[in-house]
Amino acid sequence: MKLYEFKGFPNPARIRIALAEKGLLDKTEFVQVDVPGGEHKEPTFLAKNPSGTVPVLELEDGTLLSECTAITEYLDHVAGEPGLTGETPAMRGRIAMIQRKVEAGFLDAVADFFHHATEGLGPDIESYQNAAWGARRREVALKTLSWMEEILSKQPYLAGDRFTVADITAQAGFLFAGFVKLDIPESCPNVRAYAERLAERNSIRQAA
Amino acid sequence: MKLYEFKGFPNPARIRIALAEKGLLDKTEFVQVDVPGGEHKEPTFLAKNPSGTVPVLELEDGTLLSECTAITEYLDHVAGEPGLTGETPAMRGRIAMIQRKVEAGFLDAVADFFHHATEGLGPDIESYQNAAWGARRREVALKTLSWMEEILSKQPYLAGDRFTVADITAQAGFLFAGFVKLDIPESCPNVRAYAERLAERNSIRQAA
Repeated sequence: MKLYEFKGFPNPARIRIALAEKGLLDKTEFVQVDVPGGEHKEPTFLAKNPSGTVPVLELEDGTLLSECTAITEYLDHVAGEPGLTGETPAMRGRIAMIQRKVEAGFLDAVADFFHHATEGLGPDIESYQNAAWGARRREVALKTLSWMEEILSKQPYLAGDRFTVADITAQAGFLFAGFVKLDIPESCPNVRAYAERLAERNSIRQAA
Repeated sequence: MKLYEFKGFPNPARIRIALAEKGLLDKTEFVQVDVPGGEHKEPTFLAKNPSGTVPVLELEDGTLLSECTAITEYLDHVAGEPGLTGETPAMRGRIAMIQRKVEAGFLDAVADFFHHATEGLGPDIESYQNAAWGARRREVALKTLSWMEEILSKQPYLAGDRFTVADITAQAGFLFAGFVKLDIPESCPNVRAYAERLAERNSIRQAA
């Protein structure tokens, strides 16, 4: 397999973590796409992913998978039991629900803040910015952290007793939040402890 | 099972279609939530779904599932083979990828246009609006329709030869687009024919 990515960026990190969790890191060739230079918006890359985002996973038969949740879905099923996305219908539903709420309300919200209310990737790449929208999304991210605080006051991981794709999405959110200097508020001590715990996890260290 | 919904709205329709596809419509009790009246933003409902959105599926054991993709994930696995989300790792990845692109780029984009650039659900419920963002999202929706046109010029359904959750998401997008008078452009004849074909599908008629 080949992973087109930009190492160190939050979304590519999600797939590196999933690969590490599934023991697939050394079966993957990593190809760097120059995102700060705009390579992801050029025709050659858009042919791989019309959305113009990294990461993209290319399978041996040439199949191209983009969108982190979709790539993780593939990886989780191709190597052993689908522990990251859940083995039973109810677990799959619960994990997908929490993942989606963390993605829409935290990771994507922080990303929108970055792209709209800061310089983002610079004027050549950020062809449309809406500062008010970016500021609004920062508020949403903080609200989502409060919701995560409530969950993490009762259980060690977002979807229950064990690490899942919902935690991978949260970790990408923490990476992005660090990047834009959005600190986890003091009112969220359980989220802070959780973020520190994630940072020590093997797959997350391997992916860094 | 109980489905908290507002009949006729696009996101509840997604779950009604999934229920019909899985033969579960008559095993479900439907509970109407007064969305135009703001009931989905009141504490009783927020206790069921902190995101304040319908639909929410309540299982027999009290488990509450929100987020349409998560509810569909549960339903698809609980009754027979997971035909809506895919049986093999590669199909699961491909279907999840297309679903996500249709959701983010079409359904959610049309919803954002509605909530931000029109009156939406009225001033009591739309506490934050950003008209420029809404207009931008309308452009994104039209761009996504062009991308769908290219796919549908080669195959009958968005993820390949058969109906999947990606088509359910598209159908919800068409419902919403009709609501906000966003017509499928003449430059997208294959999307137009596809939308007409979907409207005739049994599960979609049953869900209406």
